[in-house]
Amino acid sequence: MKPAEYIQTNKQRFLEELFGLIRIPSISSESSHKQDMVKAAEYLRDQILKAGADRAQVMPTEGNPVVYAEKIIDPAKKTVLVYGHYDVMPVDPLELWKTQPFEPQIIGDRLYARGANDDKGQSFMHVKAFEYLVRENLLPCNVKFMLEGEEEIGSPSLEKWCADNKAMLKADVILVSDTSMIAPDTPSITVGLRGLSYVEVSVTGPNKDLHSGIFGGAVANPANVLAKLIADLIDENGHIAIPGFYDDVVEISADERAAMAQAPFNEQEYKKALDIEEVSGEKGFTTLERTGIRPSLDVNGMWSGYTGEGAKTVLPSVARAKISMRLVPNQNWEKIADQIRDFLVARAPKSVKIEVKKLHGGSAYGADLKSEAYRAAEEAYMEVYGKKPIPTRSGGSIPIIAVFEKVLGIKSLLMGFGLEADAIHSPNESYLLENFYRGIETITSFYLHYGK
Amino acid sequence: MKPAEYIQTNKQRFLEELFGLIRIPSISSESSHKQDMVKAAEYLRDQILKAGADRAQVMPTEGNPVVYAEKIIDPAKKTVLVYGHYDVMPVDPLELWKTQPFEPQIIGDRLYARGANDDKGQSFMHVKAFEYLVRENLLPCNVKFMLEGEEEIGSPSLEKWCADNKAMLKADVILVSDTSMIAPDTPSITVGLRGLSYVEVSVTGPNKDLHSGIFGGAVANPANVLAKLIADLIDENGHIAIPGFYDDVVEISADERAAMAQAPFNEQEYKKALDIEEVSGEKGFTTLERTGIRPSLDVNGMWSGYTGEGAKTVLPSVARAKISMRLVPNQNWEKIADQIRDFLVARAPKSVKIEVKKLHGGSAYGADLKSEAYRAAEEAYMEVYGKKPIPTRSGGSIPIIAVFEKVLGIKSLLMGFGLEADAIHSPNESYLLENFYRGIETITSFYLHYGK
Repeated sequence: MKPAEYIQTNKQRFLEELFGLIRIPSISSESSHKQDMVKAAEYLRDQILKAGADRAQVMPTEGNPVVYAEKIIDPAKKTVLVYGHYDVMPVDPLELWKTQPFEPQIIGDRLYARGANDDKGQSFMHVKAFEYLVRENLLPCNVKFMLEGEEEIGSPSLEKWCADNKAMLKADVILVSDTSMIAPDTPSITVGLRGLSYVEVSVTGPNKDLHSGIFGGAVANPANVLAKLIADLIDENGHIAIPGFYDDVVEISADERAAMAQAPFNEQEYKKALDIEEVSGEKGFTTLERTGIRPSLDVNGMWSGYTGEGAKTVLPSVARAKISMRLVPNQNWEKIADQIRDFLVARAPKSVKIEVKKLHGGSAYGADLKSEAYRAAEEAYMEVYGKKPIPTRSGGSIPIIAVFEKVLGIKSLLMGFGLEADAIHSPNESYLLENFYRGIETITSFYLHYGK
Repeated sequence: MKPAEYIQTNKQRFLEELFGLIRIPSISSESSHKQDMVKAAEYLRDQILKAGADRAQVMPTEGNPVVYAEKIIDPAKKTVLVYGHYDVMPVDPLELWKTQPFEPQIIGDRLYARGANDDKGQSFMHVKAFEYLVRENLLPCNVKFMLEGEEEIGSPSLEKWCADNKAMLKADVILVSDTSMIAPDTPSITVGLRGLSYVEVSVTGPNKDLHSGIFGGAVANPANVLAKLIADLIDENGHIAIPGFYDDVVEISADERAAMAQAPFNEQEYKKALDIEEVSGEKGFTTLERTGIRPSLDVNGMWSGYTGEGAKTVLPSVARAKISMRLVPNQNWEKIADQIRDFLVARAPKSVKIEVKKLHGGSAYGADLKSEAYRAAEEAYMEVYGKKPIPTRSGGSIPIIAVFEKVLGIKSLLMGFGLEADAIHSPNESYLLENFYRGIETITSFYLHYGK
C-alpha cells in the first residue's frame, strides 16, 4: 500500500489515537499537572510499541520523564533519532477558548485543542509514519524516539539525561517536527532558530501594600519603578539598551539579507491578521529580519497591586515582570541573563529592592543545508508537495536543538508542518488536518530517501 | 455616669455590636457583595435606633443605600450631621492576612479586621457617643446620621442623594471620623485632604496573545508600550510630566511650610516602619509636604500577559494599569483625568490602540480653623488627652467632603482616631482599642462643648 492510501484508510484511527494523547492535560509549567506528565508519557510509550518498536520505555529524569523507544533493523545502517515533546503550554486565558482546550474538536478542516499542533499533533505524525514503514516492511534504517515532557519550560532535565544516555542515543540525524511552514502549499524547512533568555524581575518597595493617599508621593511605587526599568530596556530606535547585548551578534551580510527578502511575505496581510495598524521593531530591519536574524526583548507578563474590578487606592508593595529575550547565533543566554540583571540592578533606585531570577534559556541554532538529511528532506517535500522547500529562519526557540549538537554531536533537521494560523501558545490552538496527513506522508518519504 | 465610666461599663457590649457590623463583608468595589451592602446598612440602622434616634432608615440611592437617622431635640438648637461609611476595601491579597478579614479578633491591644478602623470602627464611635448622651439625657443639640456605602469607590451616588435631600440634611457642621491622628498620645485634627483622579488605562496590540518567539521584535508589545507610557508620566525630578498638571496648584508660602515643619515626624522611623532605604518623591519637598501639600501620581494596579508559575513565552494582546493622582486644593479632578488621557493617547505609538477610562475622583479640601466647631473639638481633645490637637494635612482623599461643602454648604470637621500602624486598605487592618474608647469619649465631649 502507498503511504497516501495507508493514511486514507487509517485516518479515523490515527485521529482517535491522537485525541487520547491530547485529552491528557500535560501542562509542564504547572506543578498541579505532575501526574498528567507521566500519563502522557505512558500513553505515547504504548502507542510507539503498538506501532512496531522493539522496545519503548518511560525513563525518569530529574524532572518529567522521557519516552525512549527504538527499532534497530541493522546496526550498520543509518539511524534517525526522532525528537518531540508531549508537554504543552498553559491554557489561560481560558475564557477566550471557543472549545475546551483538552477536548479535541474538529471544526471545518482544522483540529482545535491545546497541543493539536505543538507538539502532540506534530510528534504523533512520526509515530504514524513509523507505523506505516514497519507494517509495510519498508523501514530502511534504524529509528529511535526521544519525546520529552519539559520543552515548554526550557528542557531543564534533558541535557543531563542526554549526557547520561549518549551511547543509547547514537544517531546520524535528529528529526524534529516542532516548527511551521510558510503556507499549506509552500513547504519550507526551518534552518535557523532563535535562542532564549528568560528572567523574572521583582521590585519590592514598602513591606506592605500602602494607602496611596497617605503615602503617595513620598514612597517609591514599585509598579512605577518597574515600568521605568522596562521602558529603559529598549531605546527609541527599537535597540535593546543593555550594554554588551549585541556584542556577540553575528551581523548578516547584504547578500544573505537580499536572499531573505525573496521569501514570500505580505506585510499588509500580516498586519490585517493581527489587527495592528503598524509593525514595530528595530530600526533598519524588515519584519522577517526582526524575527529571523535579530534578537528581541519582550515582557511576557507583568503584575502589581490591585487588578480586580473597580478602583482600589493601593500603593503596592511589589511589582513583578517576566521578561524574555530571543537570541541569535553566537549569543550566550546565561551571559545575556547576567547582563539584563546587572542593567536592572544598576538602574533601580535605592528606594526599592530588586531581584532578577533566571527562569530558563538556550542558544540559537543554524542548520546544515549541505547535509544528506537536508537533501533527503528536500526530495521528500518535492514528492509530496511538488515543490522544493524554502529554507526559513524562525523567530521561535527550541533551545534543546543547540544542546543536542553540543552534547550528542548530532545535527537536527526541522521538518515542521505548522502554520502561523495555528495559534500555538494561544487560546484556540489548532492544526490543519491536511498538514497532519501530508506531514505523515512527507516524513515517510524522507525515511525512504534518507535510508537508501 | 461620666462618659469614661459608661464606656468602661459597656465596652464588651460595644465591641460585640461592632463585631456584628464587621462580620458583614460589605466590599463596595465587588459587585458580588451587593447584598452585603444592604445587610450592613440595615444593621447600622437598627443600632442607631436602639441607641436612641427618633427615626432611622435605609434610604435607596442610585447605588448602595444610605443609612439616615436623626434625633431632633429642639429645631432652634444647633445640629450636628455625622458622616461615615459602612463599605470597606477589598481584602486581597488574602494570603497575607494573619486572621480572617471578616472575623474580628482582638490580639494584644488591637482589633484586627477589614473595617476595624476604616470606617466601621470609627463610624461606630459616633453611634456609641450618641447612645451615651441620649441615655444620660445630656444631648445638647440635634444629631443626624448619614452613613453611606460607596466611599471606597468614590461616593458616586451621594452627591445626587444629598442634593435630593438637602432640606433633611440641614446642619451646622458635618462631623467625620475617617482619618488618622499623629500618635496615641498626640491628638490631631485633619485640616487638609487631597483630592483624587483615578483612571484605568488599557493598551491593545495584536488581536490575540502571540508566540513571543515567532512575533517578538516585529510586533509592538502592549506591556512594553504601557511601561514606557507609565515611565513618561513622572520625570527624573519626581515632577508629574503631564502638560498643565500643576497649573491650578496653589503654591504654599514659606511661612506655611515652616509651620508644617514643626509637626513631629521622624524620617528614620518612617523608613524603618516601611522597610525602605530611602524616601522618594518630588524634588525640593519634604516627606510631609509631598503627601500634604503636593499632588502625586501612583500606579495602583498593573497587569498583562502570563502571571502564573514558570515561564510562558507569550507576547500579550493587552496590558492594563490603574493609575491615580492625588490632588491639592484648586485642582479639578475631571480636568486632570482629561489631561492624563490626552497625554497617554498622544504618546501611544500607532502600533497599539489605547483607551483611558475615568474611574472616579473628587476635589481636595481645606478646613476652617476659626470655626466654633473646630474650637469645640480643640476643647474636647484637651479634656480627654490633656493636649491641644495639632492641625495636620492628610495625603488621603475623602472626595465627598468637598462635595458636602458644594452641595449642602456645610463645612466638615475631621476628628479621626486612626493611626498609621492601622494598615487601612492593607492586609491585617487593625484599630487600637484604646483609640476606639477615647474616640467615643472625645466625641461626647465635643457635643457637650459645641452644644453649649
